[in-house]
Amino acid sequence: MHEIKYKPIGIIHSPFKEPKGTPIQPAGGKDIDGTVEVFPEYAEGLKDVEGFSHIILIFHFHLSRGVSLKAKPYMDNEERGVFAIRGPSRPNPIGISIVRLVGIEENILHIKDLDMIDGTPLLDIKPYIPEFDIQEVAKIGWLEKNIHKLPTSKDDGRFMK
Amino acid sequence: MHEIKYKPIGIIHSPFKEPKGTPIQPAGGKDIDGTVEVFPEYAEGLKDVEGFSHIILIFHFHLSRGVSLKAKPYMDNEERGVFAIRGPSRPNPIGISIVRLVGIEENILHIKDLDMIDGTPLLDIKPYIPEFDIQEVAKIGWLEKNIHKLPTSKDDGRFMK
Repeated sequence: MHEIKYKPIGIIHSPFKEPKGTPIQPAGGKDIDGTVEVFPEYAEGLKDVEGFSHIILIFHFHLSRGVSLKAKPYMDNEERGVFAIRGPSRPNPIGISIVRLVGIEENILHIKDLDMIDGTPLLDIKPYIPEFDIQEVAKIGWLEKNIHKLPTSKDDGRFMK
Repeated sequence: MHEIKYKPIGIIHSPFKEPKGTPIQPAGGKDIDGTVEVFPEYAEGLKDVEGFSHIILIFHFHLSRGVSLKAKPYMDNEERGVFAIRGPSRPNPIGISIVRLVGIEENILHIKDLDMIDGTPLLDIKPYIPEFDIQEVAKIGWLEKNIHKLPTSKDDGRFMK
């Protein structure tokens, strides 16, 4: 099937300058402050966004070093299928994170609960809506035994270019 | 900034053959059955996915007719910034939906709670993990007064090519 081409609409500014030590999810980056710079040509699309307490950031894992269909996730010692983990070694290295929106000044969004590397290219912003995005889950597979490691798990650079 | 190129990893098969009448979110497509066909070259990445009751599908809004930085969402009569709505007229037409995973046979995923059009190109699959994806929300902006319309709202073709 044909290629799909996207262009970054902005850039994520974060205190994390390299993968090593970066929290692996917003839950591990609680209260970490950062900003999202939306390029001025897209700023008009930010109207009404400040009404939402949480937003979904869709971004490109620009430091991912390539595709592995199986990989060891940060919270486990076994290889798992890439579609059963959230790490960056994906066929299309797209990341999603739900962050807290603190405020917007023109084209700059102030956010909290950050788990992205500084300089990450932003692809999209969506409002987080509980009626769409909260599901009652019956099972979480291999994570069942590992989720307790989340608060202390950090990136160790394993997926880095 | 440079272009980012992705390739579909599969295709979504759904009973909805055109935008008009399609539910606008999985919550509106409750119990609707469909399948996700993952192209055989990526099937290895599906290992361990069957352990999860819900998955996040990331897909390309292939029928979106172009970018509007402001658009009227299905559930409101006012124009909203595109980053404050979930419709397809986005600078990068990426969609996300959380669906229920019923089972996997080789490279075919059986899913429920579908809101995608038949033939939608799939970009990524991620496990849905409450600890990552469920946030306690303080406000939902313009949707506060409109969310009650969700169960009965359908696509009316407004964003179609």
